[in-house]
Amino acid sequence: METIPEGDNRARLVCPDCGYIEYANPKVVVGAVCVWEEKILLCRRAIAPRIGYWTIPAGYMELNESTTDGAVREVREEACTRILVDGLVGIYEIPHISQVHVIHRARLSEPVFAPGIESQEVALFAWADIPWDALAFPSNTWALERFREGGGPVLYTAKDVVTLD
Amino acid sequence: METIPEGDNRARLVCPDCGYIEYANPKVVVGAVCVWEEKILLCRRAIAPRIGYWTIPAGYMELNESTTDGAVREVREEACTRILVDGLVGIYEIPHISQVHVIHRARLSEPVFAPGIESQEVALFAWADIPWDALAFPSNTWALERFREGGGPVLYTAKDVVTLD
Repeated sequence: METIPEGDNRARLVCPDCGYIEYANPKVVVGAVCVWEEKILLCRRAIAPRIGYWTIPAGYMELNESTTDGAVREVREEACTRILVDGLVGIYEIPHISQVHVIHRARLSEPVFAPGIESQEVALFAWADIPWDALAFPSNTWALERFREGGGPVLYTAKDVVTLD
Repeated sequence: METIPEGDNRARLVCPDCGYIEYANPKVVVGAVCVWEEKILLCRRAIAPRIGYWTIPAGYMELNESTTDGAVREVREEACTRILVDGLVGIYEIPHISQVHVIHRARLSEPVFAPGIESQEVALFAWADIPWDALAFPSNTWALERFREGGGPVLYTAKDVVTLD
């Protein structure tokens, strides 16, 4: 049941029998802008939300991994390829959906990739060919643009509530 | 019960009756290195873990807030004071406890503070007087040293498993 635990200041889900408190907190999404000879790797989503739209490989960070290890794992799962991570592009926080995206920059180890179970298609795009209007999430655009600009990691906080199909 | 959901690749807690999947993911800790006239604000912990040790104000990020808003909230709760956030010091990830610390740099709005319910004591320390051996967490040391160095945000991944009292 929902109640404010002693010493706390907001409602949590608490078990009335055993006192167990279920804390719900924001989730971290890890991913990478991956390049091969200046072309950028994008995956066309095979799962909701935004089926059919293109995204950089990214997904929820798992327990006991670093954001770097998580990015490597997501690239392996979604694009069946291996990367070398070079550093942070930025942190993109989206308070209205309680997500913090930690996005790295990386190079493909070799130009060999294939759609994983969550992707319909995986492809390399020259900058001029990126399908901006068919990107899955605003955070894709933010990370790609920052990657292109270069420079150290940025922190960007989404201001607008955007509803996506 | 613990099982691997269809289309997933790791065990999750799944309700055998309704199919609800409980995903456990890393938590984000938000905090700030706060200064007033070159002195740094530290709080002596009144709660476990590390009761009696000093820490920068920090705590779990809550739903629907940004890391900046979270840092402001933690400073208000633990040190009863207000800050102006200037930017990121760094991201400190600690895979073995599944935490990602996002630490900001900030200035006190005025030199007025007091211990909140989770603090025994709050004080300003000149750099030379920081109680390094009585800091609560390694991430405090990492953030304070990076703050002192200056420069853009760093990503630091903890390599060692440290057991704290």
